Amino acid sequence: MTEHDVDQYRVTEAPYYRPVTDEVDLYEAAYQARMPVMLKGPTGCGKSRFVEYMAWKLGRPLVTVACNEDMTAADLVGRYLLDANGTRWQDGPLTTAARIGAICYLDEVVEARQDTTVVIHPLTDHRRTLPLEKKGELVHAHSDFHLVISYNPGYQSLMKDLKQSTKQRFGALDFDYPEAAAEAEIVAHESGVDSDVADKLVQIAHRARNLKGHGLDEGISTRLLVYAGNLIAKGIEPRSACTMSLVRPLTDDPDMRETLDQAVATYF
Amino acid sequence: MTEHDVDQYRVTEAPYYRPVTDEVDLYEAAYQARMPVMLKGPTGCGKSRFVEYMAWKLGRPLVTVACNEDMTAADLVGRYLLDANGTRWQDGPLTTAARIGAICYLDEVVEARQDTTVVIHPLTDHRRTLPLEKKGELVHAHSDFHLVISYNPGYQSLMKDLKQSTKQRFGALDFDYPEAAAEAEIVAHESGVDSDVADKLVQIAHRARNLKGHGLDEGISTRLLVYAGNLIAKGIEPRSACTMSLVRPLTDDPDMRETLDQAVATYF
Amino acid sequence: MTEHDVDQYRVTEAPYYRPVTDEVDLYEAAYQARMPVMLKGPTGCGKSRFVEYMAWKLGRPLVTVACNEDMTAADLVGRYLLDANGTRWQDGPLTTAARIGAICYLDEVVEARQDTTVVIHPLTDHRRTLPLEKKGELVHAHSDFHLVISYNPGYQSLMKDLKQSTKQRFGALDFDYPEAAAEAEIVAHESGVDSDVADKLVQIAHRARNLKGHGLDEGISTRLLVYAGNLIAKGIEPRSACTMSLVRPLTDDPDMRETLDQAVATYF
Amino acid sequence: MTEHDVDQYRVTEAPYYRPVTDEVDLYEAAYQARMPVMLKGPTGCGKSRFVEYMAWKLGRPLVTVACNEDMTAADLVGRYLLDANGTRWQDGPLTTAARIGAICYLDEVVEARQDTTVVIHPLTDHRRTLPLEKKGELVHAHSDFHLVISYNPGYQSLMKDLKQSTKQRFGALDFDYPEAAAEAEIVAHESGVDSDVADKLVQIAHRARNLKGHGLDEGISTRLLVYAGNLIAKGIEPRSACTMSLVRPLTDDPDMRETLDQAVATYF
Amino acid sequence: MTEHDVDQYRVTEAPYYRPVTDEVDLYEAAYQARMPVMLKGPTGCGKSRFVEYMAWKLGRPLVTVACNEDMTAADLVGRYLLDANGTRWQDGPLTTAARIGAICYLDEVVEARQDTTVVIHPLTDHRRTLPLEKKGELVHAHSDFHLVISYNPGYQSLMKDLKQSTKQRFGALDFDYPEAAAEAEIVAHESGVDSDVADKLVQIAHRARNLKGHGLDEGISTRLLVYAGNLIAKGIEPRSACTMSLVRPLTDDPDMRETLDQAVATYF
Amino acid sequence: MTEHDVDQYRVTEAPYYRPVTDEVDLYEAAYQARMPVMLKGPTGCGKSRFVEYMAWKLGRPLVTVACNEDMTAADLVGRYLLDANGTRWQDGPLTTAARIGAICYLDEVVEARQDTTVVIHPLTDHRRTLPLEKKGELVHAHSDFHLVISYNPGYQSLMKDLKQSTKQRFGALDFDYPEAAAEAEIVAHESGVDSDVADKLVQIAHRARNLKGHGLDEGISTRLLVYAGNLIAKGIEPRSACTMSLVRPLTDDPDMRETLDQAVATYF
Repeated sequence: MTEHDVDQYRVTEAPYYRPVTDEVDLYEAAYQARMPVMLKGPTGCGKSRFVEYMAWKLGRPLVTVACNEDMTAADLVGRYLLDANGTRWQDGPLTTAARIGAICYLDEVVEARQDTTVVIHPLTDHRRTLPLEKKGELVHAHSDFHLVISYNPGYQSLMKDLKQSTKQRFGALDFDYPEAAAEAEIVAHESGVDSDVADKLVQIAHRARNLKGHGLDEGISTRLLVYAGNLIAKGIEPRSACTMSLVRPLTDDPDMRETLDQAVATYF
Repeated sequence: MTEHDVDQYRVTEAPYYRPVTDEVDLYEAAYQARMPVMLKGPTGCGKSRFVEYMAWKLGRPLVTVACNEDMTAADLVGRYLLDANGTRWQDGPLTTAARIGAICYLDEVVEARQDTTVVIHPLTDHRRTLPLEKKGELVHAHSDFHLVISYNPGYQSLMKDLKQSTKQRFGALDFDYPEAAAEAEIVAHESGVDSDVADKLVQIAHRARNLKGHGLDEGISTRLLVYAGNLIAKGIEPRSACTMSLVRPLTDDPDMRETLDQAVATYF
Repeated sequence: MTEHDVDQYRVTEAPYYRPVTDEVDLYEAAYQARMPVMLKGPTGCGKSRFVEYMAWKLGRPLVTVACNEDMTAADLVGRYLLDANGTRWQDGPLTTAARIGAICYLDEVVEARQDTTVVIHPLTDHRRTLPLEKKGELVHAHSDFHLVISYNPGYQSLMKDLKQSTKQRFGALDFDYPEAAAEAEIVAHESGVDSDVADKLVQIAHRARNLKGHGLDEGISTRLLVYAGNLIAKGIEPRSACTMSLVRPLTDDPDMRETLDQAVATYF
Repeated sequence: MTEHDVDQYRVTEAPYYRPVTDEVDLYEAAYQARMPVMLKGPTGCGKSRFVEYMAWKLGRPLVTVACNEDMTAADLVGRYLLDANGTRWQDGPLTTAARIGAICYLDEVVEARQDTTVVIHPLTDHRRTLPLEKKGELVHAHSDFHLVISYNPGYQSLMKDLKQSTKQRFGALDFDYPEAAAEAEIVAHESGVDSDVADKLVQIAHRARNLKGHGLDEGISTRLLVYAGNLIAKGIEPRSACTMSLVRPLTDDPDMRETLDQAVATYF
Repeated sequence: MTEHDVDQYRVTEAPYYRPVTDEVDLYEAAYQARMPVMLKGPTGCGKSRFVEYMAWKLGRPLVTVACNEDMTAADLVGRYLLDANGTRWQDGPLTTAARIGAICYLDEVVEARQDTTVVIHPLTDHRRTLPLEKKGELVHAHSDFHLVISYNPGYQSLMKDLKQSTKQRFGALDFDYPEAAAEAEIVAHESGVDSDVADKLVQIAHRARNLKGHGLDEGISTRLLVYAGNLIAKGIEPRSACTMSLVRPLTDDPDMRETLDQAVATYF
Repeated sequence: MTEHDVDQYRVTEAPYYRPVTDEVDLYEAAYQARMPVMLKGPTGCGKSRFVEYMAWKLGRPLVTVACNEDMTAADLVGRYLLDANGTRWQDGPLTTAARIGAICYLDEVVEARQDTTVVIHPLTDHRRTLPLEKKGELVHAHSDFHLVISYNPGYQSLMKDLKQSTKQRFGALDFDYPEAAAEAEIVAHESGVDSDVADKLVQIAHRARNLKGHGLDEGISTRLLVYAGNLIAKGIEPRSACTMSLVRPLTDDPDMRETLDQAVATYF
């Protein structure tokens, strides 16, 4: 077995997280029952932050993996590396998490190839095992181990979706952007602007979010609002800050840009 | 030959399994005749649990492989690894099972590439051999070795199906969700809720299963019912527990969600 | 040159084979002329058994390779392996067979990629050589070496067929299921049921084979009949045995299943 | 940790850069806020030069990566190399930049495969970390590290675009060819021709840029104008210089070539 | 440089070859001019035999490569192998031929991937060099080296054809089946049947060749005629021999088989 | 740094090259300005010969790479090889050329994958650097280094074309077959036939070139004319020589062959 540096996965400071409804209680019950959890919601609405917060609250280490379509099962499970004395097994992040009893967070799991998603099956039912087939070892997960995945329903196509046999292994929590007052509180807290500026930024975001599906693929995320606030706090003129942070990253369509520019001009 | 740690594959405790019809007798006869067996049925209806139960009942070790489309024949059969003294052969799970006389269970075999399914052919007829072509060895299977595969007919497309020359090497057993009373008994036993709550959960599942093919790809599995029961047993309000476990994992369609929410509201 | 353990390829006991027409004589003449042979016919009708029988009759070792679409030329010809002293060449099964004068049987050769089928060309004409290009060696086949391939015409699509330049290197023998009396004799001999039961099983098979192309991709093979006989001989009720062995493996279509069930019910 | 030769990444001489609007101020504020920056604009309009200039102005080393569709995450992050004493980890350019506090410039990031773009996610939010999954190390970026990507909106197709979850991690700056006077100044400065010739070259470019979307995929870039100026400064007759530098590289269509030739003939 | 065992490539005995027109003279002149040669014609008409004959006549070693679609440039040019002392370069067959001054015969070159065909370009013009890019060596071909490729025009599709820039590097010779008397002479000589039987076999072939494009992809080759003669010479009844050698390998179409059977019955 | 054997890349004898217009002067000016150059034109019209000539005239070593669609960036840039003492870096041809100040000629660059073409970008602008990302080294090109690519516009499809961001890094020179007198001079000089025969060969070529796009993909190249001249000079009858060299390599279409045969018959 590989030595694991557990400390690097500890969440040592309480992350700033503002609960929306009963998601903290539900997660805790799911964790007690060791029911795997799937977080659904759009980009930049706080899913990663929530997992970090729960890891801190539950006192568990957190192992995060950003999934992508070129990731193989070996990237999760581990592989043999060549050493001075021949090959040495190197646990992958999923195996590490299973051994040390961490929360393992597979971010945007639907991006991964099927072998990644199938490899988690025996960890998500009563077996709670992870077969390392290349090593001939059957890892029994630490009793504190918990699996969380995120999933953005807006992205799924027919070609790229979780299989039913995967979906039916998870309880699911929906996430969305926080309501206006909460979001403004977050923007002010994170960027350092006053509540008046934060309110205005949130209202611009609301206008943009109404355009989702009408020319915009996705609305302005809370994260982009914080970026705009950051620039304003550094002394950049608010319109320029909004153009750079809220308009240009989102779209190259001239009409859409003008609509968004006008939304900015309404408030600043 | 590789040393095999047989004990890690033993099923030491009797798994909870509630027989439906004569499947236990048929499996035993098939095992006596060493006829390979194919289990057909939907996700989460108990196929894996059945194999575990039969392995326990017959006193054979069990080697399970979750198949996936990136799995190669080498993942089943084995490969050479680099060692301090050069290369060392590492048996794959199928070879291990053939040597130690285990039941080898290839879960969702149709997901695997053809080389995986063709590699089992000589193990499934009178030869009962496994050629390790890369090693130049012809493994004669242990007389207790038995091969079982699972197969979900609902998933098969024209592109992805077993070849006739593979199908004609197996006897087949059909599986489905247990009938209501049996399923409620299972849910109560596994989750710790009382029989009244278990009955209600099963009735919600029946409503959802009627929607299969009418907006849902697959109905609510027994496994998800157990999850819902788990949350309720941890003190979560039943509606929230059902939303998290039975509704949100299954679908993102607003109409379907509402239909399922109403089914939940009818009982809780 | 690699040491070859010839004995593991010997067919030590006379396999049970019941000749149909003059196929044994034709094969022997082809073998004398070292004309490569192609066996054509459906799944489970006895092609593999025939090759085994001929190997035993001619006293030649037999090297069998189950071809698949992920098999590379190196899987047939050989490759370099890493050893304590650097790389070591490992003959593949085709090279082994060419060196030791075995019959090499490439089962379902059309499944293999083209490099597999092209690699056999110089072994199948007057040259009888196998260039190991990676090793820089030109293997001259042992004078007893013989190449046999099998080919199921029912499977071929436009995308996957032997090239004319490959076909024109083989004499061909057609195979089909044996006629009724012979097949019943085989089923009784292999499964241990009496001739009455064997006759009934064969008649069920004849009904199913008439459905080929009318809802069934392929009829019931002799192998499946033997499986059904096996179960009956173990004391399973004949209808259950037939359902498990002859109906469910073949089709998931409800109408087809009913038609086959009725065929079973006519006899048992 | 690998030793890094930071000096080779230093921009030691002030690059020639002529600001267009407030892009230098905006970049500096974004850098202070460590907001990742996306540069949008056509080929050869000065995006790479701008990043070089900002690296010099801010006194940070610069690590540039020309992205392409065959680039893997390992090309950015690093990999194990075989050494006399076994394997040795080699940081990739992104890891190097994160460790030494450089500006990392991913040129034409949209060309890269998704694993490249997803791998930057944890470096672009509050975490500022880079998980080296193969090494089992979580790199915390140097506090001076900054990420810049470039993006040519004209190239994006539906198949090849940044994901929304990537876009929403960047502030964006638009780039375009400089206005006429500024561009002539640049051409004269870089190629050594006098301002009269430079003016003419810019006016030819303006004519060609009007043809963009009307037979030309892209207009004449500033870089090509400098090349034409270079040839003229070496004594080549201006028309020949323009044909070689401004017409023939752009198009093989005879009509377009004639149109462009006439534009050249108007000025020289 | 690798040691080459030239002797294994020598054609030590005069191959049986019966010239058709002036192909021997043309080849000799092309060889004197070191003009690369392309042989065009159907399967089994004697192209490989002709090259063998010319190699013997010119006293040059012969290196033959059967091309296939999985062959890489490295399979032709060479690669590094791992040795006790690190890596060792292993020349591929093309490099070997270039060094020892052999005739290199690339059989069915159009099957190979483009990198194979492009790699021969510098060997086929005035340069006569072969860059071993992985080794950093530029091989100057031995002055006796000659390149020959074969090409079956009947197989070419739009997807798979030689590039014009490859074609224009070769002189071309057309091959076809020999006229009747010559072919009968060949069949009698190679199989041991008398001239009467050989004549009949050739006449059957002529009937089949008329069906090419009218239900048959390709006619009966001279090679198959020799096979039929072989079986007859071993005492097999002529009709059976023809069925096995001339009919069944060619087609599975019942009508075509009957037509060919009747052609056989006309003569035997 | 790898030791480079510069001498093997020297062009030691003046290649025979007959200038057409001002291409030699333009190339020299481009070389002085270190402007990368793109040569456009059909197969076999003298592009490679021109580069060889310029390398000789400018006294620079010449590194030529025949690009193909299986070539990777590593084939150009270099890779680590395993050595007795671990890995050793091996410069690829592009890196070699950049270090020794050679002219690097990428022949048919459009055949290569995009990573090949993107890898040259930093060598083709003011940076003149080549990042060896796998090695962590930034190569600054030798001041004499020059990059030339060739490109056949007739081949380009929508799928396979240079990107605009690549095209706009090169000045371009058009090439075509020489006019009649010059071409006859070349054919006579290279093949040894007299000017009368050379004239006739060129006139046959002119007839064939008029058929381009009317049944022929490409006309007869100068290279093929030289081949025909070679055969005639070896004593082959001119019609046979033309059939072998000018007609059969180009087309298998019977009508086209007849048309070309008649063109030959007009002159010989």
